[in-house]
Amino acid sequence: MATSSYRATGVDIDEAQRAIDLIASAAAQTSTPAVLGGVGGFGGLFRFDPAAYPDPILVASTDPVGTKLKVATALGRFDTIGVDLVNQNVNDVAVVGADPLFFLDYLAVGHLEAEFAAQVVRGIADACAAAGMPLIGGETAELPGVYRDDDFDLSGFIVGVSARRNLIDGRKVRAGDVLLGLPSSGLHTNGYSLARRIFPEGEWGTGMPGLEGTIGEALLAPHRSYLHELRTLRSALRAGHGDLLACAHITGGGWTGNIPRMLPAGLGVEVETGSWQVPLIFTLMQERGDIPDEEMVRVFNLGIGMTVVVHARQAEAALAALPEARRIGRVTAVSEAGPRVVFT
Amino acid sequence: MATSSYRATGVDIDEAQRAIDLIASAAAQTSTPAVLGGVGGFGGLFRFDPAAYPDPILVASTDPVGTKLKVATALGRFDTIGVDLVNQNVNDVAVVGADPLFFLDYLAVGHLEAEFAAQVVRGIADACAAAGMPLIGGETAELPGVYRDDDFDLSGFIVGVSARRNLIDGRKVRAGDVLLGLPSSGLHTNGYSLARRIFPEGEWGTGMPGLEGTIGEALLAPHRSYLHELRTLRSALRAGHGDLLACAHITGGGWTGNIPRMLPAGLGVEVETGSWQVPLIFTLMQERGDIPDEEMVRVFNLGIGMTVVVHARQAEAALAALPEARRIGRVTAVSEAGPRVVFT
Repeated sequence: MATSSYRATGVDIDEAQRAIDLIASAAAQTSTPAVLGGVGGFGGLFRFDPAAYPDPILVASTDPVGTKLKVATALGRFDTIGVDLVNQNVNDVAVVGADPLFFLDYLAVGHLEAEFAAQVVRGIADACAAAGMPLIGGETAELPGVYRDDDFDLSGFIVGVSARRNLIDGRKVRAGDVLLGLPSSGLHTNGYSLARRIFPEGEWGTGMPGLEGTIGEALLAPHRSYLHELRTLRSALRAGHGDLLACAHITGGGWTGNIPRMLPAGLGVEVETGSWQVPLIFTLMQERGDIPDEEMVRVFNLGIGMTVVVHARQAEAALAALPEARRIGRVTAVSEAGPRVVFT
Repeated sequence: MATSSYRATGVDIDEAQRAIDLIASAAAQTSTPAVLGGVGGFGGLFRFDPAAYPDPILVASTDPVGTKLKVATALGRFDTIGVDLVNQNVNDVAVVGADPLFFLDYLAVGHLEAEFAAQVVRGIADACAAAGMPLIGGETAELPGVYRDDDFDLSGFIVGVSARRNLIDGRKVRAGDVLLGLPSSGLHTNGYSLARRIFPEGEWGTGMPGLEGTIGEALLAPHRSYLHELRTLRSALRAGHGDLLACAHITGGGWTGNIPRMLPAGLGVEVETGSWQVPLIFTLMQERGDIPDEEMVRVFNLGIGMTVVVHARQAEAALAALPEARRIGRVTAVSEAGPRVVFT
C-alpha cells in the first residue's frame, strides 16, 4: 500500500496518527494492482503501462472545492465535498478524452479532528473508486496560524493519460456541428460566492416553494462525474466512424468562460434557450438576486455540467446512446470581436 | 503553451486576469518541448517518453509550505516561498531516484493581488526551471470566506518518473552500511509552529549574537533541492558498480519521522552527534525554548536536509564526489520495540 505517503502535520500527534489511520483505510479501498507499496513512502508510486497508450500524453489538473466548503460546514455534512473535489478534477481530465490514472488530495485545517478528516477522505475515496483510480497520496496539514479552528480548505490533484491520437482537441470542429448538453446535479463547484450573497447562511435550513429539501441541501448537491457518460458517447460515435469533436466542462467561469476553451479561434456557439429545463435552484437565485442573464451564464452552469460537440450526422446516435443528453445548440462562425457564446 | 490551464477564480475579474497573465508569463519560462499546448486547456498536457524509462513508475507527491508562510508575510517577502514549495516536493521525488516531470501549484488567498501572486509564482517557476521541469498548470483561488484578507495558503503537486529497476527502495540496506548527510540551508519547510513559539513575530526583525542577518531572515532561508547532488552521488557510486541504497528527506517529522521511511523493518541508524556542525539557528532555538534533544530531532532537520545510505566500501567515493556531504552515522540492527534512530 502506498498509504505511507499520507502525512499529517499537526500539534496533536495522536489525533494526527488517528487521522492518518482512518485516511489510509479509506485510501486502501481505492488501490489497484498499479499501485506500488513498500518503497520509500515519500511519494505515491504508480506503475504506468505504456503499451496501453501509444505516444502517451499525461494530463494533469488541480482544482479546489472553493467556498462550497462553507455550505458543508454550515450543514455539518462533510461526506460529499470529497466527491465534489474528485469529480470536478475527473471532468477536467475526461474532457480531453483521457483516462484518470491517480489522485492526491490536500486538506488543510485550523484544528485537525480525525473523524472530520476521515469523512472528507471517505468521500474522496468513494469518488476515486467510481472513477477507477487509486488515491495514492495526500497531505493533511494542521495550520492554526492560517485557518481558524473550524475553517479548512480542500484541494486535489489528478493525473490522467491518453494516447496522443485519441486526445479530444477540438481541431475538427466546424460551423454547423451540434452542441449537446449533459445535465448537472446543481451548482456543482462554482458560483458559491454569488449564491451565498443571494441566499445568506441563515436561510439554508429553510425550503422554497417547489424545491425538494432545504436551500442548503440544494446548494450542497455533489458535483457529477461525466467520465462514464463521455466514454459511452465516444464508443457510440466511434462505432459510427466518428468521434466526440470537443468537450467543455461548465465549471468556474460558467458558459462564457468554458465554451471557448474547447473551440478553435473563429468559432462560437449559439445556445437555444429553452432546449433544456433550467433547475429551480438557478431560477430562484436569479429572481431573488435580480441577476442579469449575462451574469447567470458567466457564473453558473444552469443545469448543464458538460457540453460536447458532435458532427450533425452523429447527433441522433449520440442522443440514442445517452438518453439524458439534450441537443442545446450549434457551432457558428464568429468574428474576432464578437461574443463566442450567444443565447437565442 | 499550457498556460491556458491556469485559472484564477475571484471577485475582481480584472485583477484575476492580470494575475493569470503574470503567472502565465512566469510559467512560460519553464516550458519544455514535452509540454503540449492548444489542446483543451482544462488540464496541463505533458508528452511522456516511455522509451526513456523502461517499466516506468510514476512518483507523485503533494506538500504545502505550511506556517513558514507566516514568516514570509511578516517580512513582506514572497519571492522565495515558491522555491520552498517546489524544492520540498522535488526532494520527495528525488529520494526514490525519480526524475521530476512536471509541477502544478495551488495558491489560495483571501484577497487576490496580481503582483503578490506573480512574486509567489516567479519563485515557483525559478525552482521548476532549476529542476528541469515545466509548471504545466495551477489554480489561484480567491476565497474571501475561508482566508482573511492577508492570509493565504500555498501547496503544490509534483509528478516524477523512474524506470522500475532504478528506483531507490532501501531493500539492499544492511547493518554496517554508512549514513551520509547533506547540509540544509536552515529549517527548510518544517518546525515553524515550534519556531514561532520560541521566537515570536515581534523579534523577527532583530538579530542574535553570531547570527548572520535577522532571525526572520534565518527562518525564511529557502528549502534546498538535493536533486542534482543525489544525481552526482549516484553517478559516482554506479561508476564503482554500486548505488545509493536509500535516501530520506529530513522534512516534517524530523529525523525520528523520516529515517524509518527509507529503511526495511529491523534496521535503524546510529547518528554520531558532533559529526556535523549544527547551524546556530537550531542551537539558539533549543537554548531559548529549553527544548529537549528528543523534541529537537523529532521536529527539526538540525542542519541535515537529506540523508543517504551507502555501502561502507563506497563511503569514500561518495564523499569524494560530493565534498559537502558528511559521514554522520551507520545502519544498525534494531529490535521491534527499540527506537530506530539513536543519537550517540
